[in-house]
This record gives sequence, C-alpha cells and structure tokens, in this order.
Amino acid sequence: MNLNAQWIVGFVDGEGCFHVGINRHEDMSVGCQVVPEFTIVQNQRDIQVLHAIRAYFGCGVVRTDHGDRMAYRVRKHEHLLEKITPFFMEHHLKSKKQLDFLKFRTVVLMMQSGEHLTKEGIERIRLIAQQMHRIDTKIKSGSFGNTGE
Amino acid sequence: MNLNAQWIVGFVDGEGCFHVGINRHEDMSVGCQVVPEFTIVQNQRDIQVLHAIRAYFGCGVVRTDHGDRMAYRVRKHEHLLEKITPFFMEHHLKSKKQLDFLKFRTVVLMMQSGEHLTKEGIERIRLIAQQMHRIDTKIKSGSFGNTGE
Repeated sequence: MNLNAQWIVGFVDGEGCFHVGINRHEDMSVGCQVVPEFTIVQNQRDIQVLHAIRAYFGCGVVRTDHGDRMAYRVRKHEHLLEKITPFFMEHHLKSKKQLDFLKFRTVVLMMQSGEHLTKEGIERIRLIAQQMHRIDTKIKSGSFGNTGE
Repeated sequence: MNLNAQWIVGFVDGEGCFHVGINRHEDMSVGCQVVPEFTIVQNQRDIQVLHAIRAYFGCGVVRTDHGDRMAYRVRKHEHLLEKITPFFMEHHLKSKKQLDFLKFRTVVLMMQSGEHLTKEGIERIRLIAQQMHRIDTKIKSGSFGNTGE
C-alpha cells in the first residue's frame, strides 16, 4: 500500500491522537513521568493501514488496543522528535487537531531540553497538557488530556 | 482552506460513512424507499473542515447531527451519481471502507437504472445493504447498514 503524505494528514485529522500523559512515578526525582504519545486506533479489519503508516514513518509499533481495536503508537522520544513532529510541521493538519499537535510538539521540545526533569518544567507541561483535547475530552470523558494524576 | 484530493480520501477513510438506508414508505408502490447517503460527522469545532469539503465537492449540506456534532451529508441522487462516486472511483480509499463504497456505488447505479422501483430490485439492494459495515456495525450497534426495517 503506497501512502501519500496528504492522505496521512487527512487520516490523522480524522483518526490520530496527540496525547501527553503525566503519570505518577515514584522513582523519578520529580515524582512524575511525562509520556507524549502519537496514536491511531482502528478496527482490526484495517490493521494493514496501520502497518502501512508504520512503514511510512519508519518507527512505532502496531499493537492490540482493546478488544477488536488495534493501535499504531509512537512513544520513543527520538522518533517523536525526529520523525513524527517534523512530518506534521511540513504537512499541516487542517482540523483543530493542529492546535493539539502544536502543544504536543512544544512538550516534545521541552523534554529535549530536559525541562521535564524539574518541578517547574513538569508544572509547565501539566498546564499545556490541560489545554489539549479540551472540546473532545469534555464530551468524551470529562478529562483534560493528562492521565494518571 | 485548500483541500487536496488525497487529504479528502484520508479523512474519509477515517471519518466518512457510505450508508444505504431502506425505509418503509407506504406511498411508494414497492412499500420502501432506498436512501443512499454519504456523511462525515465532526465535532462542531471542526465545522470549517466540513464546509471546505462541501465546497470541494460542490454539493451536499452541513447540518447539526446531534448535540455538538455536525454532519456533512450528500443525499441527492444526481450528486451521488455525478460527483461523489466518480471522485472515489478516481481516488481509491485505502481502508476496508473501500468495500462499503463499492457496494454503495452499486446501489446508486441500480437506482439510476430504476431497479429500486421493483420488488426484486429492492430485495437485491437489501442484500447489498446487509453486507455493508458488517464489522463496524456489529461492534457498534448490532445492525447491518439498513435502517427503518
């Protein structure tokens, strides 16, 4: 399956998710771990689409999400920094998901400069995460894009 | 907002729906009305995306779906026949939604030749509609793509 960059942008405008998790982690000196994650979830009937996207980006994994749902997921910092965020900086999302992406990218860049290892940095990241997915998550779950807290 | 054909295909692979409704309609000699419908539903925050798609295709309407959801919808037979189905014959969907689209197109063509006005045609269309969305709708609602029957 040959994918085109604009097809991927359209598909991610519909189905993609840029999420910043902030999880309690007692072993970390700041008590929290920041986990930015890019995911696309599909019914298993379209698992070949997820594999084609994985091949296009050259990173990430395709795994079971829950039940019949499969997920393409990228969590590795270097892949988010060097592959995923540059792609969407070159090919802009057309939906309001673009606003979430820009906040997501800010967090990835903050992590690159080590800000997630300070309490002040964690608080800044938490504020950014709280501003993500506001409309979608108010409707879907009442949460605000940060998990585990 | 300038949309690219491949972006639209990707977005529809994620968010589009090709549906064939078969509704009871006592005024019709065959007792049923066949209603093929192409829809894209989005949260109202992305209503401008739906308007851009409407402008791209040059047909259809953007209306409230329910609650905060808005829908782009094409129902007019001539628009499905002359604009929507030719677009997706030229630009193939990459997900399994392509199978639904091909069945949808078959129904639109059958209606063009008047088959929906005979009891035998209605039964053939009903069989096709039953084969659409099987995986998605089994999970989501237990129905099989035909409504009102």
